[in-house]
Amino acid sequence: MNVKIIVTGKTKDIYVKQASDEYIKRLSPFYSLTLVEIPAEQITDENLYEKYKKIEGEKILSKINSDSFVITLEIGGKSLSSEEFAEKLKDVTSRGVNEICFVIGGANGLHSLVSERADFKLSFSKMTFTHQMIRILLLEQIYRAAKINANEKYHR
Amino acid sequence: MNVKIIVTGKTKDIYVKQASDEYIKRLSPFYSLTLVEIPAEQITDENLYEKYKKIEGEKILSKINSDSFVITLEIGGKSLSSEEFAEKLKDVTSRGVNEICFVIGGANGLHSLVSERADFKLSFSKMTFTHQMIRILLLEQIYRAAKINANEKYHR
Repeated sequence: MNVKIIVTGKTKDIYVKQASDEYIKRLSPFYSLTLVEIPAEQITDENLYEKYKKIEGEKILSKINSDSFVITLEIGGKSLSSEEFAEKLKDVTSRGVNEICFVIGGANGLHSLVSERADFKLSFSKMTFTHQMIRILLLEQIYRAAKINANEKYHR
Repeated sequence: MNVKIIVTGKTKDIYVKQASDEYIKRLSPFYSLTLVEIPAEQITDENLYEKYKKIEGEKILSKINSDSFVITLEIGGKSLSSEEFAEKLKDVTSRGVNEICFVIGGANGLHSLVSERADFKLSFSKMTFTHQMIRILLLEQIYRAAKINANEKYHR
């Protein structure tokens, strides 16, 4: 199974990079994982907010394959436990889907164009986390799901 | 306001240490923050699980001041948005509380003794996160709350 994670904004924090790299390494026996970074639009003029958000959205859409199963991370999405998330991934895999594509919006949020493309909207928390932190949390949850689905013990 | 964060288990991951240090630095204008690490009991015998969990719990309780407002992080606790969390901290501060004490359990979970001492049980997510990640998320949410309560713009 191929897993693509599209994130908006390059990471500046070294610890985000290190944590991402660590989980990508740990995930390699389970998934062929690609991380795609979309450059974030620097919004200086508030009036152009929607316009820039749409540009970001269009860039994201251009990276999504037409036959991908798309899971967007949205604060208003559905909350799942780690076990339910593992079950969801197992279910999608069993449908013969070739690629699962996760999309994490940037500081400007996700454009409705992207949200409409989603096959599933997932919420990690009612709280607003930085999009950088969500990147690590998502990688960790995919790893946890892979371990749950493989019936392997997960050492926290 | 003094804020104490009691965590179970020393961090091994360098990025957790770096992220923690970064947020503790950023929080210094707002709170006098102390991070207390309780050594985690290494459970090798499953039959001793409850016993070790209780030992951890007792160690945690010994670090909590009798007049602290205690917030435990528990998966079954109450979910708050970042704004509601900020409101909660503001509310506790306005009551003249001298110290807010957050408690993050370890891989073995939190003993009921600690849970019973809680003035508020907070849930970050239905998902299980590593206790190391929760440490960073909590620091980030306290920082976010401080910025919200100070009416300062928060750059993600």
